[in-house]
Amino acid sequence: MSLTLSEIARLVEGRLTGDGDLLIQGAATLAVARAGEITLADNPKHAAHLDRCAASAVVVPESFQPESRPTITVADVHVAFSRIVSHFHPPRTTSRPGISPAAFVDASAQIGDGVEIHPQACVGRDVQIGAGCVIHSGVRILDGCRIGAHTTLFPNAVLYENTVLGERVIVHAGAVLGAHGFGYSLAAGKHKLCAQLGSVQVGDDVEIGAATAIDRGTYGPTVIGDGTKLDNLVQIGHNCRIGKHNLICSQVGIAGSCSTGDYVVMAGQVGIADHLHMADRTVLGAKSGVMFDTEPGKRYIGLPAVEEREAFRGAALVRQLPELKKQIQELRRAAALPAQSLETQPEAA
Amino acid sequence: MSLTLSEIARLVEGRLTGDGDLLIQGAATLAVARAGEITLADNPKHAAHLDRCAASAVVVPESFQPESRPTITVADVHVAFSRIVSHFHPPRTTSRPGISPAAFVDASAQIGDGVEIHPQACVGRDVQIGAGCVIHSGVRILDGCRIGAHTTLFPNAVLYENTVLGERVIVHAGAVLGAHGFGYSLAAGKHKLCAQLGSVQVGDDVEIGAATAIDRGTYGPTVIGDGTKLDNLVQIGHNCRIGKHNLICSQVGIAGSCSTGDYVVMAGQVGIADHLHMADRTVLGAKSGVMFDTEPGKRYIGLPAVEEREAFRGAALVRQLPELKKQIQELRRAAALPAQSLETQPEAA
Amino acid sequence: MSLTLSEIARLVEGRLTGDGDLLIQGAATLAVARAGEITLADNPKHAAHLDRCAASAVVVPESFQPESRPTITVADVHVAFSRIVSHFHPPRTTSRPGISPAAFVDASAQIGDGVEIHPQACVGRDVQIGAGCVIHSGVRILDGCRIGAHTTLFPNAVLYENTVLGERVIVHAGAVLGAHGFGYSLAAGKHKLCAQLGSVQVGDDVEIGAATAIDRGTYGPTVIGDGTKLDNLVQIGHNCRIGKHNLICSQVGIAGSCSTGDYVVMAGQVGIADHLHMADRTVLGAKSGVMFDTEPGKRYIGLPAVEEREAFRGAALVRQLPELKKQIQELRRAAALPAQSLETQPEAA
Repeated sequence: MSLTLSEIARLVEGRLTGDGDLLIQGAATLAVARAGEITLADNPKHAAHLDRCAASAVVVPESFQPESRPTITVADVHVAFSRIVSHFHPPRTTSRPGISPAAFVDASAQIGDGVEIHPQACVGRDVQIGAGCVIHSGVRILDGCRIGAHTTLFPNAVLYENTVLGERVIVHAGAVLGAHGFGYSLAAGKHKLCAQLGSVQVGDDVEIGAATAIDRGTYGPTVIGDGTKLDNLVQIGHNCRIGKHNLICSQVGIAGSCSTGDYVVMAGQVGIADHLHMADRTVLGAKSGVMFDTEPGKRYIGLPAVEEREAFRGAALVRQLPELKKQIQELRRAAALPAQSLETQPEAA
Repeated sequence: MSLTLSEIARLVEGRLTGDGDLLIQGAATLAVARAGEITLADNPKHAAHLDRCAASAVVVPESFQPESRPTITVADVHVAFSRIVSHFHPPRTTSRPGISPAAFVDASAQIGDGVEIHPQACVGRDVQIGAGCVIHSGVRILDGCRIGAHTTLFPNAVLYENTVLGERVIVHAGAVLGAHGFGYSLAAGKHKLCAQLGSVQVGDDVEIGAATAIDRGTYGPTVIGDGTKLDNLVQIGHNCRIGKHNLICSQVGIAGSCSTGDYVVMAGQVGIADHLHMADRTVLGAKSGVMFDTEPGKRYIGLPAVEEREAFRGAALVRQLPELKKQIQELRRAAALPAQSLETQPEAA
Repeated sequence: MSLTLSEIARLVEGRLTGDGDLLIQGAATLAVARAGEITLADNPKHAAHLDRCAASAVVVPESFQPESRPTITVADVHVAFSRIVSHFHPPRTTSRPGISPAAFVDASAQIGDGVEIHPQACVGRDVQIGAGCVIHSGVRILDGCRIGAHTTLFPNAVLYENTVLGERVIVHAGAVLGAHGFGYSLAAGKHKLCAQLGSVQVGDDVEIGAATAIDRGTYGPTVIGDGTKLDNLVQIGHNCRIGKHNLICSQVGIAGSCSTGDYVVMAGQVGIADHLHMADRTVLGAKSGVMFDTEPGKRYIGLPAVEEREAFRGAALVRQLPELKKQIQELRRAAALPAQSLETQPEAA
């Protein structure tokens, strides 16, 4: 599987600088590449990392031309490096058994051309599956679901009844779409579940992470817009209407009846209270707890979340407290007031 | 499927105000209802929302009588609206195949009357399942579990061995009951797993959300009390004893050996340290981190959590810091001390 | 099943103090043990708990010798108590059906001696499973995975293609190894998924909790080191290299390309930003949000996380604010400046 640097340069249509006969045995990232391997550096920021790396050659963009070792310069570093990695470790193609006899497919289901249904998947009544879909082992598609073309459901994903998925959607293992919304009213000392008449509707080109949960709406759909990506272990509450092209990182929780605009970004472990609207291009920092509607394009962070610059200012103020204490003591001395030790004061409001 | 307003008023036994011949084509919530549809408004607080909504009619309670469009007044807005939604979108009844031949049921299992076991569910040795239970596709019930009557297990829920569920319990897709408690002792540089001899015991009328995990006890049961509701992606540690009628929202984590009283409420993403007791009717705000036992009926919030009024007071104090700085500068001028810039001071304690 | 105290003392090879003829009907922990049962107290700290407990006898270590009731003194309280609990509630042995005919095992898979594959598990092409492994119902092992000897996969665990597990690994129900990393680049207004050419590699003696997600690497492996334990609902991002013997509690989220040393401890709900290194023996307090590389052996807490002692100091400073306000008012009076009420000041920076 070894290749010379010249061969690699040809493979990725790149410009070689250095010894073209050098033999390369593998490809790995900066953090782990060893001598004899080729690595990648997509940005001059990584110069120091590259200096510490033992790789024998490096794929770089025009904007970063290190001289420490042979380089292959390309237009798109990641496209080129993917091609190199794929040479050394050819990716496995998914088994394509057609519709496995070990799957369970209800007779009323409509299955498009070229659909793959792996062993032990289960497809319920009146389900529609578009052309070219891949339904992995253990997927559960309950009655009345409709799935657009070229969508992939990874193992053990679950769609409750009447879930609608667009085209080219990817749902990862263990994700659950359409479970009950968490809404109760107290009657005679018991929590009574609210109506669960809605469902989940997912647009085109959406990706949904492993073990992510999207609850059904109360009376209508919970909606995920086209092109939005949800990471693993995310919670989307009932009745939410998530916009297009959002990026929602791992372990984010969005309470019921929230909405978002387009191109909203939420970092990991963010929480959003119910019935709020995140405007277009809002950016929420990791672990933020949001309790108000946001304005378009603004950045928020903190618990409770505030605008980013305000959060930095608040933190700076708290850091100044030791100095404030010193100045007060100095003033007391100047005013001939007794020098009280703050540490020994009782806590009084 | 269209209905006149008069027909809808009769359907929900409500009082019609306005044009009874108006034709209604559908039902939707305030946020999304369009002209030709009927919506609901359960509270005068929603007056402004209603003004912005294009719906042609609205279901209201006696306490809210808007004049902007025809109304149907009912005793319980949500019961009435559920009936209307169900007319326009009749809910799907779950397939009831009896015990599917494509399920795996151990010969030693005792299955009650009218139990449904969907394809590819798995029921282990010595399992007991009460009358009227619904076991969806992909559910795994390990050896020795006992399940009360009229309980529903949604797809891919997992019960480890000896789990006990009460009557009318709902377990959502991907929930896991009875995995190992996270307890280790360090011996010779390795973490050794503690005893895992207990199990999980769940009372009557409990609902457990999607991908929620409840660990087994060390020597005895982890307990979930009657009527308690757990949302999605919740973590209940080993040995916990959760009381009755608690509401535990999404992504809450409760460490090992905690207990709670009755009617405790935890908002989303709360964390509770191990071995603590949350007293009856404690309310924990979203994202709180609790490190002490709570008192009955009190509200806590923050990281670390404090009583709600104390949290508000602390936040108010930090907001006053700019004014405190101004007053200190003023005093320094009055005392003819040099006007030091805080911003340029080194950070000293 | 009842035993006399003498019989129990013999069972655990302990030293009896008190009435050996006392009949014991069960064993339970301090929080729940009743009269007629035996309990355990592994530490003098539990003296007060023991006083409130109705148990008729107690298993104790040499270092704690209460006189309130009969005791059995042993070298290792937990080993002894496990033996007693197992007498009263013999643990269930897992069904060992060999390779169930109701499982799906691809003909190309290599299965070691004594492997158990339960009904409705699915084993893909070119999979290797070492001797003595237990593959529970609903487990999905995609093509090309390699699993070391004596590893257990609980129900509905999912291994994407090419996942590698060491020996004696335990993967709990619903865990997902190898889903797509959450990396996208924006092109023409759409988020384009980055390369997904890597996989997940797990060392020996690792335990992975229920519904925990470990994403595959971009170009190479995401790595979990020998002896590391992950609790439930944990997120490990793509390209992470987790060291040996880490303890990572429930709902922790580690963003992409992080690394950790050995014996790192993370309490519940911690979040770590991407590309950071947690040094050997770092300890992160519950709910911390870490935004920098840590130093070996140090403890951090807070949002954003700081060193533990610094966090305590910051909290102490905020608690002193009321007293600072009082002293400033006093100074103003001494300087004959007007006594402004802070509460009525506008918020100005």
